[in-house]
Amino acid sequence: MDFQHSPRVQDLQQRLTAFMEDHVYPNEHVFNQQAKERRWKSPAILEELKEKARGQGLWNLFMPDEAFGPGLSNIEYAPLAEIMGRVFWAPEVFNCNAPDTGNMEVFVKYGTPEQQERWLKPLLEGKIRSAFAMTEPAVASSDATNVETSIMRDGDHYVINGRKWFITNAMHERCEIFIVMGKSDPDNPNRHLQQTQILVPRDTPGLSVVRPLSTLGYFEEPGGHAEVVFHDVRVPKENLLLGEGRGFEVAQGRLGPGRIHHCMRLIGAAQRALETACQRVEQRVVFGKKLSQQGSVRESIAQMASKVEMCRLLTLRAAEKMDREGTKEARDLIAMAKIMVPQLTSEVIDMAMQMHGAGGLTEDYFMAEAFNYARWCRLADGPDQVHMMALGKQVIAQYGGR
Amino acid sequence: MDFQHSPRVQDLQQRLTAFMEDHVYPNEHVFNQQAKERRWKSPAILEELKEKARGQGLWNLFMPDEAFGPGLSNIEYAPLAEIMGRVFWAPEVFNCNAPDTGNMEVFVKYGTPEQQERWLKPLLEGKIRSAFAMTEPAVASSDATNVETSIMRDGDHYVINGRKWFITNAMHERCEIFIVMGKSDPDNPNRHLQQTQILVPRDTPGLSVVRPLSTLGYFEEPGGHAEVVFHDVRVPKENLLLGEGRGFEVAQGRLGPGRIHHCMRLIGAAQRALETACQRVEQRVVFGKKLSQQGSVRESIAQMASKVEMCRLLTLRAAEKMDREGTKEARDLIAMAKIMVPQLTSEVIDMAMQMHGAGGLTEDYFMAEAFNYARWCRLADGPDQVHMMALGKQVIAQYGGR
Amino acid sequence: MDFQHSPRVQDLQQRLTAFMEDHVYPNEHVFNQQAKERRWKSPAILEELKEKARGQGLWNLFMPDEAFGPGLSNIEYAPLAEIMGRVFWAPEVFNCNAPDTGNMEVFVKYGTPEQQERWLKPLLEGKIRSAFAMTEPAVASSDATNVETSIMRDGDHYVINGRKWFITNAMHERCEIFIVMGKSDPDNPNRHLQQTQILVPRDTPGLSVVRPLSTLGYFEEPGGHAEVVFHDVRVPKENLLLGEGRGFEVAQGRLGPGRIHHCMRLIGAAQRALETACQRVEQRVVFGKKLSQQGSVRESIAQMASKVEMCRLLTLRAAEKMDREGTKEARDLIAMAKIMVPQLTSEVIDMAMQMHGAGGLTEDYFMAEAFNYARWCRLADGPDQVHMMALGKQVIAQYGGR
Amino acid sequence: MDFQHSPRVQDLQQRLTAFMEDHVYPNEHVFNQQAKERRWKSPAILEELKEKARGQGLWNLFMPDEAFGPGLSNIEYAPLAEIMGRVFWAPEVFNCNAPDTGNMEVFVKYGTPEQQERWLKPLLEGKIRSAFAMTEPAVASSDATNVETSIMRDGDHYVINGRKWFITNAMHERCEIFIVMGKSDPDNPNRHLQQTQILVPRDTPGLSVVRPLSTLGYFEEPGGHAEVVFHDVRVPKENLLLGEGRGFEVAQGRLGPGRIHHCMRLIGAAQRALETACQRVEQRVVFGKKLSQQGSVRESIAQMASKVEMCRLLTLRAAEKMDREGTKEARDLIAMAKIMVPQLTSEVIDMAMQMHGAGGLTEDYFMAEAFNYARWCRLADGPDQVHMMALGKQVIAQYGGR
Repeated sequence: MDFQHSPRVQDLQQRLTAFMEDHVYPNEHVFNQQAKERRWKSPAILEELKEKARGQGLWNLFMPDEAFGPGLSNIEYAPLAEIMGRVFWAPEVFNCNAPDTGNMEVFVKYGTPEQQERWLKPLLEGKIRSAFAMTEPAVASSDATNVETSIMRDGDHYVINGRKWFITNAMHERCEIFIVMGKSDPDNPNRHLQQTQILVPRDTPGLSVVRPLSTLGYFEEPGGHAEVVFHDVRVPKENLLLGEGRGFEVAQGRLGPGRIHHCMRLIGAAQRALETACQRVEQRVVFGKKLSQQGSVRESIAQMASKVEMCRLLTLRAAEKMDREGTKEARDLIAMAKIMVPQLTSEVIDMAMQMHGAGGLTEDYFMAEAFNYARWCRLADGPDQVHMMALGKQVIAQYGGR
Repeated sequence: MDFQHSPRVQDLQQRLTAFMEDHVYPNEHVFNQQAKERRWKSPAILEELKEKARGQGLWNLFMPDEAFGPGLSNIEYAPLAEIMGRVFWAPEVFNCNAPDTGNMEVFVKYGTPEQQERWLKPLLEGKIRSAFAMTEPAVASSDATNVETSIMRDGDHYVINGRKWFITNAMHERCEIFIVMGKSDPDNPNRHLQQTQILVPRDTPGLSVVRPLSTLGYFEEPGGHAEVVFHDVRVPKENLLLGEGRGFEVAQGRLGPGRIHHCMRLIGAAQRALETACQRVEQRVVFGKKLSQQGSVRESIAQMASKVEMCRLLTLRAAEKMDREGTKEARDLIAMAKIMVPQLTSEVIDMAMQMHGAGGLTEDYFMAEAFNYARWCRLADGPDQVHMMALGKQVIAQYGGR
Repeated sequence: MDFQHSPRVQDLQQRLTAFMEDHVYPNEHVFNQQAKERRWKSPAILEELKEKARGQGLWNLFMPDEAFGPGLSNIEYAPLAEIMGRVFWAPEVFNCNAPDTGNMEVFVKYGTPEQQERWLKPLLEGKIRSAFAMTEPAVASSDATNVETSIMRDGDHYVINGRKWFITNAMHERCEIFIVMGKSDPDNPNRHLQQTQILVPRDTPGLSVVRPLSTLGYFEEPGGHAEVVFHDVRVPKENLLLGEGRGFEVAQGRLGPGRIHHCMRLIGAAQRALETACQRVEQRVVFGKKLSQQGSVRESIAQMASKVEMCRLLTLRAAEKMDREGTKEARDLIAMAKIMVPQLTSEVIDMAMQMHGAGGLTEDYFMAEAFNYARWCRLADGPDQVHMMALGKQVIAQYGGR
Repeated sequence: MDFQHSPRVQDLQQRLTAFMEDHVYPNEHVFNQQAKERRWKSPAILEELKEKARGQGLWNLFMPDEAFGPGLSNIEYAPLAEIMGRVFWAPEVFNCNAPDTGNMEVFVKYGTPEQQERWLKPLLEGKIRSAFAMTEPAVASSDATNVETSIMRDGDHYVINGRKWFITNAMHERCEIFIVMGKSDPDNPNRHLQQTQILVPRDTPGLSVVRPLSTLGYFEEPGGHAEVVFHDVRVPKENLLLGEGRGFEVAQGRLGPGRIHHCMRLIGAAQRALETACQRVEQRVVFGKKLSQQGSVRESIAQMASKVEMCRLLTLRAAEKMDREGTKEARDLIAMAKIMVPQLTSEVIDMAMQMHGAGGLTEDYFMAEAFNYARWCRLADGPDQVHMMALGKQVIAQYGGR
């Protein structure tokens, strides 16, 4: 048993940290201002930093396939994603932001050479953005077999009808491609063969991005989370991913690393909140004493530090099991991370805000947006409760029969 | 011991509830749209509803002085504030919103006849809005003796210099008067005689409303919470409230009912979140079963209902003690309400959001904004921790000596 | 709305408090020693104090029927039970301990004159003790229809077979009568007509008290909680309570006040733990400072005081609704009290123990036994979860259909 | 980074597990009965199992010094201590119980050859037991410099006077040696040079074991936790450990592995509670459905499993840092484990008890005693709060200055 990262990872950690300190933190307010002013356009500072990061080889670090990127394993990528996660928009600087990462992995695994040339290439270069359209307002989409959007064969085309929401990136002006999940065979007795995934270019007639959705008041420009309507959208059959009826299979495939990347980033956000809180309490004087000298503040800091470390270890453990035994075998640890990390990191960030007084809730600090991130992660990929139900069932099956 | 409200209060409860159902709930989206479009102007629908409410006598219900309003006690007002609190902006419909309520009480208690004529009258009529400028970014303002803004006598005038933030209502186009707290005698050995409160009309040269502040992404239009700078602001000595050096006394006076009104409203928000959650779980089907039939959902609803009831009882108990024995004597129960109500109601609202899935975090529901309200109430009037410290000290003094 | 107790209740509060201070607290160690030495015999000090209390008219305060006792309502009894609850064994001093209280109420409501003469009279006089035998190890007894003990008619007798556990008082040498619940008509299609309650004198052949059961290491002498076996136990048909097949009806009847009496007492235990903690932190010096001057200690005390007050108000509210509208109508508030009070009071007591260091866990203080009391109350009358399920269902029915 | 245990450790895990299954679990009731009947004598079954374990080489596994035992590192010992911790008394079967383990390490590090021959040898053989007398009722002993027992030089002897409590093992009939901490130089300006540790054989005149102390009703026979008085106890100067004035140094030395062994064992107790709960919910039917099919039960099991895993990872991480960088460097992670593990494991065990109904609180299961173990560990080696204060201070120092 060994908790040390490899030299390669340690080197990347140092370089990423230096990049964050030199280029990202100093530009947080610039980014916020640009993102607010031009809303759904990529902020100039972001494009500038992407160029820099790519120049330094800090690019596509998430990509496990060596043919397309550095080929890091999950356990190697985790500490890097943590560093990126310290600023909500920083992952995109390194072309490591969701859902583009998941989409790129899908293209690598399931895309045809033509699809890879047309969409994967510009995605890997950070030229375009992409969306993954699965969640629907009308049904509990945590169960993928519930989706109701129809994807019907019509000669050499497919016709798509349905309503989606929380489609991340869809508001982005450069979001050029949607991977859409729907039902092509709703009556198939095998529920896992009813779905199909298909590519829909943004400018396809019938695709309407209806509105951006906020969470806790945040729109998360420039990508946003959108409501999207598909009304008689026609695409050629060459746009199929993997094949008709194999949508569930593709979905399962992407849920591997994708599931846990949010956890890695949230740990970074919580770690930064902890550090920021430490600085605050060293500077703030209340009732004649530095906050850092108050016993209750020290107790809170101790709790926060412990929670961050527990989240980090749990996520690393899940990553290692994924690497060693595969996603399916690691689903217990993945579920634990998904249940615990958003919950505990949101507690850490909440306490850090509290230590900042009312200012801690404002846009003057990164914490309120980070809190929002942790909060919606408790619903991303299904509510906490769904993951708890599944994990509980699995644990009972493991021990209950003895 | 008797938990029944008086017939007068029951009548007001029914009329308020009917008003909310007839006029407020149906217009929530209209309000949100208007508030967003014209940001710091009073939404047309709000002015329309104010007219209606005033016509029905549902007006200034908070005002305890019978010369200026209905003269309800705290225990009588509490269940009414709860009803108004079900919609974040509804209190203003009935001219019962903070900080105008507190300011009006200050004018009633401490204002000269001229001040009352000039400012109290239009406030009671809902024609203008007002602000209370106490909190400062540089110091822990939960201790009122910390404020650093200077209010210096200069002949027949006072000159004000300082920076304030979280000045609620200051963004509102009709916010015409600021009650400003500062130090006129910073070297007075009695720390409670250093402060003065003074009136500053908005158009006084040197007063700049710098920017609105968000909390968790919300700007809470049209009143907002602003950062405000006072640079060599001169006002005549007639603008003094009560007298030079009596600012702390005035502040203490307003903290009576004002402190607990937020709690009353939050209970309404949480009660509505509970009801909304009940409706949701009756309608939503997951894995082939209504959510309302899931054991874990029922357990959560039970917890939520219990928390709302405990908050309600604690707030009523504090209100009754204030009425019977006075604010000072009731400070233990007031502190309990202030500690528990924002915390527990935010938990209730958070769980209600969770039961709604990702949609629960959006502007499609009232819950995210209500959560933000509960969240910043944990810092309003000082962070939770300050109230806990004070209450703890008091309880130890009560029992520790035995 | 009015939170003041009546003059009669205030008088009883003062007299009870004086009795506790004069006679109960000074004898806690005497009781513990006597109870340990003679285990299942009534400690001499207890008998002595019972005599005193009875002499002062502090006797059978629980009894709502004026023909048999003082005839206090629930809201009147609640603050008195709180005072008694400050010492785990004190309720019996005033003949107000469970399950004798519930059994006496059953005799008052459903007993024949002969049964009342034979059993109720000595119970009211504190001469004998009694048990209520419902819970069974083999089934989830929180659902009364699950009990499997058979009570079969055989001529003019009934024959009882079954195994019960957690039969409070059964270890007591003076426990002379068991009220036994079982099934006389297990095949009745109406599940609520299958049960019968019947009286079994302790010396009836076939009744064996098998062993005492501990909870968290406590045996709670002298009454204890026993495992009891009924093997071909025969009693005459005159021992029926109310009538064959009416056992469920009797059970429902006793669940009224009985359910909430534990909550009242636990509030007293928690209040005393709070007061004891205050005294401790005023005396204990750590790292050169009194604990009471530590911020984190004050925060904890504030939380504890708030929790006790919330529990008290919730229990009073439930009591008042029971008095006003009846047990059935008040079942939502009763459930809230049952869910919240054991949980919150156990948190308060746990924190008080923690403030005492390791000594707080020992028999040198009352707290560890009080913690045990709060802990098993989370299972008495069904686990928390059952009450939450029922309350959740009821709340959803109330609001979900809108 | 690698989470796999070495082949040697995996082999020991398997052998220990087999031993537990073959010899320990089947004898839990035998042990309890023997321990209760003969209280402070070593139960025959324990001696029998010690013989067996020693014969299989499962002996002194804790001993890091290869000259005296297997020489396992902390990271190697952790998973083995977890297995032993599944039964409260099992560690002694393998001669790995506290405080004998810590005392043996002290003898190895600081004992003279004579002391080692006289005391260490029979301890390593499991022939005698030992105690460590540090905690005092009168002072906050979490700060070792507070101890007030005096150890005064008198010619070639030292004379000891003082009162200690929570002296584990002191009740044991075979507890032959006490390591006593006290002050030999109370006026030394360097507070860390005031203390001395000295050996006191049990039969030394003036040493009185006053009484056993219970925690939550448990006496934890046969070792117990005792109150001990030293009244003019004289021992020769050869009984000094390391040297006069070096008591604090010796104390620091033992706090290394010792501190974290409780955490390792508690993880085993919690893991077993989780497994036992899984079995229970698979068997118990409530309201017509297996508990394991209830959503809320699955959610609870998921939470429990996640907490156990987080505790395990945190403890392993602390162990690894201790091995790699030393106890002092690892004090942040040690503190995290000490704060989190007793708290989280007590939550897990508490929920497992709850799932068993009232029976879960009795001696029919191991859980109540395990809960007591977790509970007092929140006070062992200083209350949680002391560790939080220290960790908080350290974390603030690390990050606050940036």
